[in-house]
Amino acid sequence: MDEERTAEWWGRRAWALLSAVRARAPLVQCITNLVSMDIVANALLAAGASPAMIHCLREIPDFTPRCDAVCVNVGTLSEDWLPSMHAAASACRPWVLDPAAAAASEFRMEACLSLLALRPAVVRGNASEILALASRSIASSSTFKGADSSHDSGDALEAAKSLAQSTGAVIAVSGAVDYITDGKQVVGASNGVAMMQKITATGCAVTALITAFVAVEPSDALVAAACALAIFGLAGEVGMESAKGPASLRMHLVDTLYCLDEQTVTSRVKITLQS
Amino acid sequence: MDEERTAEWWGRRAWALLSAVRARAPLVQCITNLVSMDIVANALLAAGASPAMIHCLREIPDFTPRCDAVCVNVGTLSEDWLPSMHAAASACRPWVLDPAAAAASEFRMEACLSLLALRPAVVRGNASEILALASRSIASSSTFKGADSSHDSGDALEAAKSLAQSTGAVIAVSGAVDYITDGKQVVGASNGVAMMQKITATGCAVTALITAFVAVEPSDALVAAACALAIFGLAGEVGMESAKGPASLRMHLVDTLYCLDEQTVTSRVKITLQS
Amino acid sequence: MDEERTAEWWGRRAWALLSAVRARAPLVQCITNLVSMDIVANALLAAGASPAMIHCLREIPDFTPRCDAVCVNVGTLSEDWLPSMHAAASACRPWVLDPAAAAASEFRMEACLSLLALRPAVVRGNASEILALASRSIASSSTFKGADSSHDSGDALEAAKSLAQSTGAVIAVSGAVDYITDGKQVVGASNGVAMMQKITATGCAVTALITAFVAVEPSDALVAAACALAIFGLAGEVGMESAKGPASLRMHLVDTLYCLDEQTVTSRVKITLQS
Repeated sequence: MDEERTAEWWGRRAWALLSAVRARAPLVQCITNLVSMDIVANALLAAGASPAMIHCLREIPDFTPRCDAVCVNVGTLSEDWLPSMHAAASACRPWVLDPAAAAASEFRMEACLSLLALRPAVVRGNASEILALASRSIASSSTFKGADSSHDSGDALEAAKSLAQSTGAVIAVSGAVDYITDGKQVVGASNGVAMMQKITATGCAVTALITAFVAVEPSDALVAAACALAIFGLAGEVGMESAKGPASLRMHLVDTLYCLDEQTVTSRVKITLQS
Repeated sequence: MDEERTAEWWGRRAWALLSAVRARAPLVQCITNLVSMDIVANALLAAGASPAMIHCLREIPDFTPRCDAVCVNVGTLSEDWLPSMHAAASACRPWVLDPAAAAASEFRMEACLSLLALRPAVVRGNASEILALASRSIASSSTFKGADSSHDSGDALEAAKSLAQSTGAVIAVSGAVDYITDGKQVVGASNGVAMMQKITATGCAVTALITAFVAVEPSDALVAAACALAIFGLAGEVGMESAKGPASLRMHLVDTLYCLDEQTVTSRVKITLQS
Repeated sequence: MDEERTAEWWGRRAWALLSAVRARAPLVQCITNLVSMDIVANALLAAGASPAMIHCLREIPDFTPRCDAVCVNVGTLSEDWLPSMHAAASACRPWVLDPAAAAASEFRMEACLSLLALRPAVVRGNASEILALASRSIASSSTFKGADSSHDSGDALEAAKSLAQSTGAVIAVSGAVDYITDGKQVVGASNGVAMMQKITATGCAVTALITAFVAVEPSDALVAAACALAIFGLAGEVGMESAKGPASLRMHLVDTLYCLDEQTVTSRVKITLQS
């Protein structure tokens, strides 16, 4: 990573990428879980992208090649949706994977591993999900919390590096600090507020935002992912200034995604090189 | 169209139909896309209708004939839902079609055309969707934006007239000005604010509202559709007075649908005869 | 029921159970309808539980036994989801049933009766749903309103007692007063505001909250259900103080679930022994 990647550099990059999403309105196909569809589509629209939630296998040959990027999220996986996920991931570059609740079952773990083999540009999960993927095993019942993480993001950093090296994907681990790695470099993004975890599908929404950022910066998925995570966290921080609980935070977060200006982004994005 | 259809006449009609929905609470079955279910059901409830999101083919013979109207939306079409759409559209009059993203694939276009043959009372889409339906062809990749329109509503006016004539349905084209036509008369409704396009599924929600209005005024689908579009747009205008972005606009829009009073409706609905 | 179950006793119990949900964050699997997923997951998170919306039959043997409770809701029933509902209800104790729109069709009624045979700890429905279940027959078209009730909760009290006796489940009938019975005792919970009926899936959300409460108090489902209903209604009352319509009420209700404190709960929960 170059010497000049100061905090100021990251702030300018984040603003440039958000501006590019707003200017180019990338068409992002999301094959996502049923819980997240509303917030995923609204977060993408607020950020300036054009979401499409088409999931039918028969539509993918006609539709997916016209998209700028694809987001696949296995949160409410089913046998009939998995072939669509495989087809869409194969039909468009770049694409991004959210291995939601990867350790919920052997079926889900196998699905995630089969998707990983289709070369996603980025994989974004919480620490428990990344640890499970890297170990290729489902969680023990003693610590399993479904879609919620039972580990800190830092606990999954070595697993993330290893997974990045074995898959060629950029791996992003969400947490109090988000870690993003290509297997060599590690970047930390520390925007966000704890209450975002009390809103369902914020993880799914940020994965979709990463997809939009990668759509406009396909040649540097590490930078795109880090900037998207920071922007989303920053929207949560600004939103929190007006929030009285998780539901109003959700509203203010999406409003803020729409309204974020250059001054706020460049001065408040917190991304640093970790190693 | 009669001479007396002044702006005042339309205001009174819009208020009368909204009042009828509130008084009669029509039961509206919505076989709609997965993204839109929350806002569709909440918009119908706020307007005074009773939504039912039942989609199972085996339930339609028992359930659908008891409904006052049916709304079909192909936004997240799948092979297993299409037979339910056909069955429900055949089991209840009136019914309304939303050909969401009609040009996404050949499969979807064929589905829309097969539904059109089942004589919907109203078809509501954006300009790109109506143009695609009228030409019976899927969009070129150069202009395709998924669920978002890449044309102004006026661009689709001739296509809408032609489609109305060939199908017998009232065709409504959403846009900065909404055009509603039965193939002869054209009415324009110009309420609304641009930010409504940044909320996912507002198109789906207004199609559902049209369905509720047609349920209480089945004998004049042109008037019912125009009034529903104007009322929904007006709710957006009033909501915009308190909104700080698309998420708060969505909340205020639905709140306003619930609260709209006679004075506001009769003085602010903007519907005019175009030809 | 013991003599000491005064209003104060109920207030303390409600607070103790809400505190237990917050402290233990029970993992609650919800196989719920497509309309309700967002509000169900967000209400559970706001109350302190950990929701999981997994519905795939192949995942249930691995996943469901690790959950603390299961919530099944038939609102958008389909043939492919019903086996998952049966499997999940069989794989975890306690589990709770929401027979949403039970009278919509013979298929749905049979599904509800087959689920009832799997010994739910609690069944929560509106009066029309409980009356239909108790009579094992679908509604007449003259009064049927889909997911909305066409009866007051008191009308279903005898049906609820009978259903409790025949099934062994606690039956909760939602309405202006919620009645909760194990077939002998009847408890009334009278928190809540009428506008909550204008928000889609509030019934589904309170059934999910009941599930979380039963997860932390499996030995007394009657008390757990009554406290959950009162807490949810109280969140609606407090939320109503800031609401301008159903959409803002929904936001404030969820925010309030997150913020409710001991003083508010113990002083405002309204639960009384009816018989």
